Amino acid sequence: MSTGPVASVSGLRSRIGETVTLRGWLYNRRDSGKIRFLVFRDGSGYVQCVVVKKEVPEEVWTESDRLTQESSFEVTGVVREAPRQEGGVEVGVTGLTVLSVCHDWPITPKEHGVDFLMSQRHLWLRSAKQVAILRVRSEVESAIHDFYHSRGYTRVDSPILTPNACEGTSNLFETQYTEEEKAYLSQSGQLYLEPAAAALGKVYCFGPTFRAEKSKTRRHLREFWMVEPEVAFLEIDGLKALAEEFVKELTARVLDRRKEDLKRLERDTTTLEATVAKPFPRIDYREAIEILATKGFPVKFGDDLGGDEETALTEGFDTPVMVTRYPAAIKSFYMQPDPEDPEVVLGLDMLAPEGYGEIIGGSQRIHDHDLLLSRIRQHELPVEAFQWYLDVRKYGSFPHSGFGMGLERFTAWMCGVPHLRECIPYPRMLYRIYP
Amino acid sequence: MSTGPVASVSGLRSRIGETVTLRGWLYNRRDSGKIRFLVFRDGSGYVQCVVVKKEVPEEVWTESDRLTQESSFEVTGVVREAPRQEGGVEVGVTGLTVLSVCHDWPITPKEHGVDFLMSQRHLWLRSAKQVAILRVRSEVESAIHDFYHSRGYTRVDSPILTPNACEGTSNLFETQYTEEEKAYLSQSGQLYLEPAAAALGKVYCFGPTFRAEKSKTRRHLREFWMVEPEVAFLEIDGLKALAEEFVKELTARVLDRRKEDLKRLERDTTTLEATVAKPFPRIDYREAIEILATKGFPVKFGDDLGGDEETALTEGFDTPVMVTRYPAAIKSFYMQPDPEDPEVVLGLDMLAPEGYGEIIGGSQRIHDHDLLLSRIRQHELPVEAFQWYLDVRKYGSFPHSGFGMGLERFTAWMCGVPHLRECIPYPRMLYRIYP
Repeated sequence: MSTGPVASVSGLRSRIGETVTLRGWLYNRRDSGKIRFLVFRDGSGYVQCVVVKKEVPEEVWTESDRLTQESSFEVTGVVREAPRQEGGVEVGVTGLTVLSVCHDWPITPKEHGVDFLMSQRHLWLRSAKQVAILRVRSEVESAIHDFYHSRGYTRVDSPILTPNACEGTSNLFETQYTEEEKAYLSQSGQLYLEPAAAALGKVYCFGPTFRAEKSKTRRHLREFWMVEPEVAFLEIDGLKALAEEFVKELTARVLDRRKEDLKRLERDTTTLEATVAKPFPRIDYREAIEILATKGFPVKFGDDLGGDEETALTEGFDTPVMVTRYPAAIKSFYMQPDPEDPEVVLGLDMLAPEGYGEIIGGSQRIHDHDLLLSRIRQHELPVEAFQWYLDVRKYGSFPHSGFGMGLERFTAWMCGVPHLRECIPYPRMLYRIYP
Repeated sequence: MSTGPVASVSGLRSRIGETVTLRGWLYNRRDSGKIRFLVFRDGSGYVQCVVVKKEVPEEVWTESDRLTQESSFEVTGVVREAPRQEGGVEVGVTGLTVLSVCHDWPITPKEHGVDFLMSQRHLWLRSAKQVAILRVRSEVESAIHDFYHSRGYTRVDSPILTPNACEGTSNLFETQYTEEEKAYLSQSGQLYLEPAAAALGKVYCFGPTFRAEKSKTRRHLREFWMVEPEVAFLEIDGLKALAEEFVKELTARVLDRRKEDLKRLERDTTTLEATVAKPFPRIDYREAIEILATKGFPVKFGDDLGGDEETALTEGFDTPVMVTRYPAAIKSFYMQPDPEDPEVVLGLDMLAPEGYGEIIGGSQRIHDHDLLLSRIRQHELPVEAFQWYLDVRKYGSFPHSGFGMGLERFTAWMCGVPHLRECIPYPRMLYRIYP
């Protein structure tokens, strides 16, 4: 490798006329007699590098002929305008050094089965579509942090190793913590955020969560990332406003900064633009079951809504839909009952349009100590293990609310990708833990 | 609670003369005859609220008398300048509603044992010192993301559940992944970042890592957070520059934005200011053992440096010190040998001043396939399990480097707190997993 400064593809637009050096990999190549077109990639973007036989030294021409897909190389040349090329520029090559020739790259342009691609995930990551999805995911993560930090939230990392389950004990990964004691991998940081909200007012966590589920559907991962805000003195109406503002800001950010990636994914951005511009419909569960009845779903009060029902509810809308006031019986023990309709709780689910399903679930939390205690008993949870959680209501209790948003589900919707396994770098699914 | 807008303490400085409503908790109270001084906290800061008996309705005076430490309440009043108060303002109370009286708050001003405080961690979080530490931690996290995103890195979340260990198999938490298969909790995301660097050029991960260590020292947590950048085509000199720039930027951010918190922690910021201003000394391991010999440590080539040696090496410096070129035999299998001195590797440890120990460890990685393969065999690691990692060197190999920084160790140094357990919201240590 040379020792001088190295440029990145993403910065070439502002360097027209300059000679630059780039380092990366060959994405594609087309030979046309005495001209060779190399599509170069360095992770920041793609640029066509043009080698003209009669304009370069003999050794540059022969060196460039050694390049196969995914070979690494260093290329030097002049940046010039090329309106028909991606990014509006191309590079007229003057020098080229091959760093490592790639033989037998396993991911050929032919259609591969998903099982094959998943077993080659460490290499599949390099393909243009996967790169685009991961860049959208990273942008969403960045937007999440900016959203909360600019609003005065403190990030509070919830523990992963926990002594008891947040919501029931099924689907938990278990590990031996010490010789005497077991620990379980967290399914949600919420319970740990509530005491922190009493310390810091507005808090959020962002980290991996785990479900040892046996399902193999496209909507299930065994390890996925979740962002969870929790806000002291916030009640259900404020929570709805927060959730809507949050989704709007994240979506606007992706539209603004990941345009090229959405284009590469051939994403029709109609619903994303509507999401930024229009208020989200809000439907009470009781209304929802009436709507579903007119659509031929025989749902009655007390039934949970499945994927098909969720999709039917969002039909006709081009933004997410917020469904609130679910029956207490089908929701978590900590949700605050509606004072005007105690059969339902002040919970909130946000359903993405286009069949992408639930992206947010949240609620106002019970802040009355005795009511929470009775709910813990009703749900046959061990009171002893929840003592610290009850303490939040014992010492200076306060109304509070929060929600959780699954990063992969949100990213899947942004990208228009139906399967969550492509929305996380190294998916963990049933029978899939390699690489 | 009222339904109007609620202010936060952190915003009061710009609202002098206005009437505001605040919601939060009583931190402290002093009664002086017909005047009552309430130190109010809402997580964003502290402000003194003054209740003057003859200036408020009778019920406000009696209501305010019910307030005990950590009682939650809503207070309305006029913001006025008070140069001798924290934040430069106080509130002249006009209205007050108690939301929940707190009885028997367990954390009294008397000195509590650490075991007691740790078992009350969910409540201890509310104390002023703990709040300050968590705000510094959150600021560092925010600065980490800004550092990488502003430089074009893509965040790539490494998996937590892994089929094999990154560096040996000791100290691993194990879980049953499926009936047939076990999984282990990740100790580092590095191995997974390297293939991603081939896809995206500059990447980083930030997440929890796990060590099932039996140690009980102040420097050990069983669950801690780590940030790891990995950069394609970066070599050891570039890595040193990156690590130094990173630590400088994070430190400058803490000094700039968490001044009040550092003051509350009574942190002498001399080394932090020097860290921002001065270049970091760089010492080769061979030099380091000579220096240690003059200080009476009988270290010879091939010995690892312990905590006492690290502290001795940083003596006399007020910035972090970078130690490089360690013997290959005591470092990880993937570290690139120094071409000019093959007994040592191009590894890098950064030691914080004041005895805070290693905050960064990193290296240039071996990019030659056959050399890496022979190292995997030398270390008696299962080649089969590392096939995907070897593939990074098989298909378009490239020099690359990266490091890992432990968030809690860095936060401990920033705050001047000797024990890591206070630098994470819910510490996980040997015999400590509750709450």
